Amino acid sequence: MPGRAIHSIMPNQFDAFLAALAAIVGKDHVLTGQAGTARYTADWRRNFPGAALAVARPADTQQVSRVVALSARHGVAVVPQGGNTGLVGGSTPDASGRELVLSLDRMTAVRRVDALDNSITLEAGCTVLAAQEAADGAGRLFALSLASEGSATVGGVVSTNAGGEQVLRYGNTRDLTLGLEVVLADGSVLDQLGTLRKDNTGYDLKQLFIGGEGTLGVVTAASFKLHAQPAKVLTAWVAVPTPQAAVDLLCRLTGAVGERVTAFELIGRQTLAQVLAHPLDGMRNPLTIDTPWSVLFDVSETSALMDPEPAVHAVLEAAMEASAVTDAVIAASGRQAHELWALREHVPEAQRLDGPSIKHDISVAVSRIPEFIAAAGAALEALMPGIRIVCFGHVGDGNLHYNQSKPAGMDEAAFRAQEQAVHDAVHGAAARLGGSISAEHGIGRLKQQAFLQYKPAVSVAVMQRIKQALDPHCTFNPGRLLPRPVHQPS
Amino acid sequence: MPGRAIHSIMPNQFDAFLAALAAIVGKDHVLTGQAGTARYTADWRRNFPGAALAVARPADTQQVSRVVALSARHGVAVVPQGGNTGLVGGSTPDASGRELVLSLDRMTAVRRVDALDNSITLEAGCTVLAAQEAADGAGRLFALSLASEGSATVGGVVSTNAGGEQVLRYGNTRDLTLGLEVVLADGSVLDQLGTLRKDNTGYDLKQLFIGGEGTLGVVTAASFKLHAQPAKVLTAWVAVPTPQAAVDLLCRLTGAVGERVTAFELIGRQTLAQVLAHPLDGMRNPLTIDTPWSVLFDVSETSALMDPEPAVHAVLEAAMEASAVTDAVIAASGRQAHELWALREHVPEAQRLDGPSIKHDISVAVSRIPEFIAAAGAALEALMPGIRIVCFGHVGDGNLHYNQSKPAGMDEAAFRAQEQAVHDAVHGAAARLGGSISAEHGIGRLKQQAFLQYKPAVSVAVMQRIKQALDPHCTFNPGRLLPRPVHQPS
Repeated sequence: MPGRAIHSIMPNQFDAFLAALAAIVGKDHVLTGQAGTARYTADWRRNFPGAALAVARPADTQQVSRVVALSARHGVAVVPQGGNTGLVGGSTPDASGRELVLSLDRMTAVRRVDALDNSITLEAGCTVLAAQEAADGAGRLFALSLASEGSATVGGVVSTNAGGEQVLRYGNTRDLTLGLEVVLADGSVLDQLGTLRKDNTGYDLKQLFIGGEGTLGVVTAASFKLHAQPAKVLTAWVAVPTPQAAVDLLCRLTGAVGERVTAFELIGRQTLAQVLAHPLDGMRNPLTIDTPWSVLFDVSETSALMDPEPAVHAVLEAAMEASAVTDAVIAASGRQAHELWALREHVPEAQRLDGPSIKHDISVAVSRIPEFIAAAGAALEALMPGIRIVCFGHVGDGNLHYNQSKPAGMDEAAFRAQEQAVHDAVHGAAARLGGSISAEHGIGRLKQQAFLQYKPAVSVAVMQRIKQALDPHCTFNPGRLLPRPVHQPS
Repeated sequence: MPGRAIHSIMPNQFDAFLAALAAIVGKDHVLTGQAGTARYTADWRRNFPGAALAVARPADTQQVSRVVALSARHGVAVVPQGGNTGLVGGSTPDASGRELVLSLDRMTAVRRVDALDNSITLEAGCTVLAAQEAADGAGRLFALSLASEGSATVGGVVSTNAGGEQVLRYGNTRDLTLGLEVVLADGSVLDQLGTLRKDNTGYDLKQLFIGGEGTLGVVTAASFKLHAQPAKVLTAWVAVPTPQAAVDLLCRLTGAVGERVTAFELIGRQTLAQVLAHPLDGMRNPLTIDTPWSVLFDVSETSALMDPEPAVHAVLEAAMEASAVTDAVIAASGRQAHELWALREHVPEAQRLDGPSIKHDISVAVSRIPEFIAAAGAALEALMPGIRIVCFGHVGDGNLHYNQSKPAGMDEAAFRAQEQAVHDAVHGAAARLGGSISAEHGIGRLKQQAFLQYKPAVSVAVMQRIKQALDPHCTFNPGRLLPRPVHQPS
């Protein structure tokens, strides 16, 4: 209720709380002090250094339930944490030292893999890589694929509705999730962990926790769809003259091979230049021509009895004839395909090595990608002549990581001083085209201001009512995603 | 809030309310009296005859907003209605004569079709058939396909998360929905009508209204994914000795042609016998042998450059060699395919012509279909020797319409007297296997008792908190899905 005060633990209660915590999870699994908690208290990019009252590492769902109930009783805020690979400060404690980090890192079991049902059930602390391996062991594909998959966990990808490189074909985490087990703010366990494909018995509650950023409950386990493994993957690097030509190529390609288009990435000239200026061993330009835009795509086929390669060749030939494609290379081996993807995956690191940057994660309808690139580019050039635009991303999903590096010779402080104006230019261009200011990274603390600026007020108000209904004392992740409720006397 | 009284309109306020309603939608679009409202007040199966205070037919979202706000002020319950094709009494008024039917049947516009984005935006009263035709006109596929598609509307399929015949490949309505426009209980408009494929800016609120059965808001428009049209569809009717053999065949088939398996239906001997006992013109058994179980499947291919037929043949040959398939026919033409599907689609009508029946709509994991059929069959035979089991449905999704016709010679009253015991046997068998008591039809009024019996109490309690948060005065569809809140003084 809006008038309810939010309790907060007092320092003289710390010891009693920590003792009760140790009684639940065992004292070896209650971490305190700077040294013990360091890896849990700052996000991995170190944009949000924090401090924790403690880190609790429960062994099972029952312990999570008891930790949450205890924390709620003591008025301790709970910050659920998976692999700590988030990009928006959503899973680490603030600087107050009064928040409890609830790490799921001991809950790593693969509970069940079922090849016939094409489903897998995993505990929240299981990594995406472990999920892929478990599926692979059963001859199936766990279709989520992320740069951070070695560390990112099930609970984290669910809570952030993670996307990644194969969304075009398989959807994002929401589309892959069949069921969830969630600990609620009063410690009760919401068991929606089935693997049913169809179940119309009331509101689909699990959807609230997918992308809920840990503000409504703690995801303790999840079940996901599995898919058939690809029998063949075709990877191509293609030069196109314009973003419109890239979108047209996507259209030709899906027209010819339909849902087999698994990934479709756009890479701008400046982006490739940064990669080639800061290469890893052996990296080189896959094409001999200079091109303003490149496309990297995968077409995958699950049937060993069918081959999409002739259809892909036909599409590329027709596009070249129409000057919609100016050059192309198809990987001749898995190793070559890996080399092409390595260029794409090295982009963030190359941009870091290049120097200061300002980053965005926008989406628009695929058809409006060219318009967005033109509008945002013009606005940025007007704001800061010479600004270098590092544009790349999942064009097949309408999602661009549309970043900026400072103009050659500009002072870093002068560049940083314009950061908000750059955000406004980019987010404004996306918003005017009906786009999103956060396509896959979420809101957390980093994007809350932009979220409140661009999200319709009715939507934010409904979210606040949902938060209030499920977590009335704001036990979970206060101030992340939604602003803290105003503190009022009861 | 639990203590808040729910208002109810008094008869002396009827005239003022109706006048205000007419001022919003025009007096021609406020229907009253038995004759004017008959088609809106009972469900099409006439299991729930009702009476309405009036039927309001707004022309646009703004009018819906004003009607809802007016109704909320007057304490009039609002029952949103689309094509009135639901099966659980969720969209028609109760017998009190005090509920307002809010029909979306004037809001039929196709707002936008975008072939490049593979998206379509439609008003709530647009039929599924009209959506299919609009998509077809743009060279795309609207992948929802239902027996009732000529009448069922966008608002209805969203609010019930409709399934249908192609869920295996394209998913249910939830999977197809990109955005919604919804009028909330205070009349405000929640605009989430984008067509973005990726947008992680807070809770995905639209999910609550998909399958929300009109209890949380009025869906006024929706945007959906479109797909590539199939270049070729292969339809086959196959005899299998057991349900396990059917599941094995599904596994072989998806192994060979993956996601191209578009539909996979199981039909029991008794089901086919009823169809052939009450045939439409020209219907005949597609096979010459008698078989305990038949499978009807579609494999569709979107690429004109690729042909899945050799792979399907190879699967059937291998299965016949292993005695997992005893006979098979592949449709040689679109007309033959249509004839095979007509047998499947005639099942409900044939069962009606056969006489009294008791119906279910359960789901379990695909791998547990054989176990469910064995367990439920044994329980029913023990309960009522000679009971005839009419088993058919979407096995590829784990969804069976597992119905019963009365034993030959049994008195109808004696059969009906056992209805609850039959429900308990079937629902119990599904529940023990982790299944659902309503896979695609929803809860409405018909299944509320079973819903409360089988849904975990924690889930029901969270749903009630959501309902309370979004519709605190219970304006929308009171008593459907969730029980009416207990009436307490404020």
